[in-house]
This record gives sequence, C-alpha cells and structure tokens, in this order.
Amino acid sequence: MTNYPITRSSDQPMQAVVLMSGGLDSYTAAAIARSEGFSLNALTVHYGQRHACEIEAARRIASALGVQKHLEIGLDLRGIGGSALTSDTPVPRDRDLSAVDIPSTYVPARNTIFLALALGWAEALDARDIVIGVNALDYSGYPDCRPAFIGAFESLARLATKAGVEGATFRVHTPLIALTKAAIIRRGLDLGLDYALTHSCYDPTASGAPCDRCDSCVLRAKGFAEAGVPDPLLLR
Amino acid sequence: MTNYPITRSSDQPMQAVVLMSGGLDSYTAAAIARSEGFSLNALTVHYGQRHACEIEAARRIASALGVQKHLEIGLDLRGIGGSALTSDTPVPRDRDLSAVDIPSTYVPARNTIFLALALGWAEALDARDIVIGVNALDYSGYPDCRPAFIGAFESLARLATKAGVEGATFRVHTPLIALTKAAIIRRGLDLGLDYALTHSCYDPTASGAPCDRCDSCVLRAKGFAEAGVPDPLLLR
Repeated sequence: MTNYPITRSSDQPMQAVVLMSGGLDSYTAAAIARSEGFSLNALTVHYGQRHACEIEAARRIASALGVQKHLEIGLDLRGIGGSALTSDTPVPRDRDLSAVDIPSTYVPARNTIFLALALGWAEALDARDIVIGVNALDYSGYPDCRPAFIGAFESLARLATKAGVEGATFRVHTPLIALTKAAIIRRGLDLGLDYALTHSCYDPTASGAPCDRCDSCVLRAKGFAEAGVPDPLLLR
Repeated sequence: MTNYPITRSSDQPMQAVVLMSGGLDSYTAAAIARSEGFSLNALTVHYGQRHACEIEAARRIASALGVQKHLEIGLDLRGIGGSALTSDTPVPRDRDLSAVDIPSTYVPARNTIFLALALGWAEALDARDIVIGVNALDYSGYPDCRPAFIGAFESLARLATKAGVEGATFRVHTPLIALTKAAIIRRGLDLGLDYALTHSCYDPTASGAPCDRCDSCVLRAKGFAEAGVPDPLLLR
C-alpha cells in the first residue's frame, strides 16, 4: 500500500502512473515518487468538474515535474450524478469539518474509477506502480481515501489484469495517506515545489479565484497556517 | 458473486445496473436479471471501439428490454493503448481458441473500469446490484472474466463507497459465468430474446457485417451450432 521499498532490476528508471488532479496533494505525491526514483506518467481525468482551472493546474504541474507522459482522459461523470462536484447542487460552504458524515462533494466510486484507469494505463506501459495523493487524515471523510480501500484495490489489480495473472504485483503508493495537510505542505516545500501552480477550490469564481469557504479551501488554509507558511496562491 | 437469492423489502422492483455492450452475452445477462424481477438501468461505455455498430446494438437491446434508464458514457481508452480493440493493431483472426495465452484483444483493466463506473452509478441510483455478462468458459481467456476477480470487486465495492461504509453490500451478478455459449443462447431463446438485435464481431466491415473470423465471431458461431439453432444475424 504505502512505503514499499523500491527495488531495481536495471539502470532504467521504474515507470509509475501518477493520478494528477491539479491539487496540492497530487503534486506532492508525484514529487515524492519522483524523488524516490520513479519516472512519472501523469494521468488526468476530465470528469465533468465544474471548473477547467483544475485541469490547467494539472498541466502546469505535469510540466513542472518533467513527466514522461501526460495522458488526459475525458470521462463525463455528470450522467452518473450523485455529487455536488459533478452536478448543479451547490458545493457546501463553511461546513463543520469535524462532522462525521460524508459530504455532498463525494463523487460515487471516484477513486475506484480513477485507479481502474490508472491500472489499465500502467499495464499498457508495463509499469507496476501507481501513485495517488489520497489522505486519510485531512480528507473530508471520503471512504475511498482509506488504507483498507487501497489494500483491496491492490488485491483486485492482481486478479484483474493479464500482468497479474502472469505473476506481476501492482502497488498503489499513497505517500500522503498518514500525513496532515501541514506535513504534506512542509514535505513539498522541502522538495522545492511551487504551490502557486496548484488549484484546490471546489467552487472557484469565473476568473478561477478560490472561494475560501468550501472544504478544500478550508483544509488548504488550515494546512498552510499550521505549516507556518503563506499560501502562494493568496500572495498573487 | 453469482446466484444470490433475491430478497425484497417492499413491492418496489429492485434496481440493477446492467453493463450493456450490444453483444449477446450482455443482452442475455440483462434479460435473466429482468426475469428475476430487477428493474434495469443499462450502462454502455463508448470506449473508442473500432465500430459504432456495437453501440447501436446496445441501444436496440436496451429498448427491446424496456430498461428504466440507458446511460451512455464516453471514455476514450485509445490513449491508454495496449489492445487491438482500441488501437490500429489488427484484430487476430482464425486464432486457436484452445491456446492458453491471453489474446491482443484484451483491453487492460477493462472490466475493472466498467464495474467501477457501474458501481458509481449504482450508488447514485441507490441500487445495490450490478449485472455483467462475463463468462469464464467460452471467454477468450480474459483474466477479468473469472469468479475470483468478481469476488474481489465485490469486496472492494464495500470499502470504496459511502453506501458500503454505511453497511450496504453491493452484489455483482454474473448469471452467465459458468455457462457455455450454447447454454447462454438456449437460455436467451427460452426468454424470448431476438439475437438479431445483437452485434458480436470485433472487426466488422464498414457496413457492419461480421468478419466471421475473430474470436468473438468464432465463439458465437460455435455457440449457435452447439445450441442447434441458426444465428439470426446470418439469416438476414
């Protein structure tokens, strides 16, 4: 699941598929994988988000990280419904983040869908490693961000693929899963990341400015405050 | 996995999401689910197949079955590559179907991706049942058609979803998994299905006529021969 030792069978860098949303978590997770020696293949899914600025951020980040390939896949989840992120339901603001309920921004089975796409691309690339920036602490309560889910996906991957049948093991790396948002930011700053490239808000204005009140904005602000550094997005 | 008893908590028909490709397997699987009392919600994924006739067949079948909803999702898997079905690699013809290797028509992680989408829609619809026409006998050797894969997906579904966290169990019904192609056809004919509506060929001509030589055509022809009935597609 997480913290696998990296072993090399040759001098070729190992290929990893990294899910790249444009937010600070996926940027940091990708940078950690790169620092561990992986050659990155970024996968961005256009899933009918309300805002194109998330995709533009993913492109900036992929470019800044010098990824090998950046694959963008169009997948319109609006027909599925069930989420404030893919429908006209208002995104909740000023929510009590200590509440235990799963919020309306939950997209049904989103990480299952994203990991399935990453698995397909990984198998086609002959890669065995997938990186996802999920976080089980400051994570809004989504079920598909938990270690048990990631472990179940790894088990599935072995049974689901030609490579798995032939003996390969797919690993889903979750370098952020046990970190607070502040720890994620500190780790990224240590790696020299420029968080001005990222986009976090669920419900930005037409010009792309963050709303400052959705869960994602609130968690981001809390993270920068606890890390003791200013958010470069707010300095512009 | 398969053969779950159907229990009802009310007089409302239970909703099921059915993966609907346009082939005879998904048509028969859907019809069996309907005969067991499910109200059908058909999901067709446009995944960059070589031929639009498969999608037209899915629409005809959905209409013939009187589905509640038919959701078509565009998902371009051509960028992922790795398969003769989503690339310009030739579809193999006249292959030895007793060979144990997995053929080039295998689409990496396809059923994982399709079941993930079905799971998302099922959760949004408040449905707990997913139907897929996979078959572990006359199936071309794909890993994601086996019972162990289906069981692993059910385990994942419980961990992956808000509904699962809240105690729901998702079931993936595979009514064809242990049937020969001939048995599938006989079961469908007993249910009054019109297989002239379906499309099976991996590599049809421009007018939509089957090639008669790809795995899918060969398995279909063998199935009708063993069932002792003519294929209505060949009578037209």
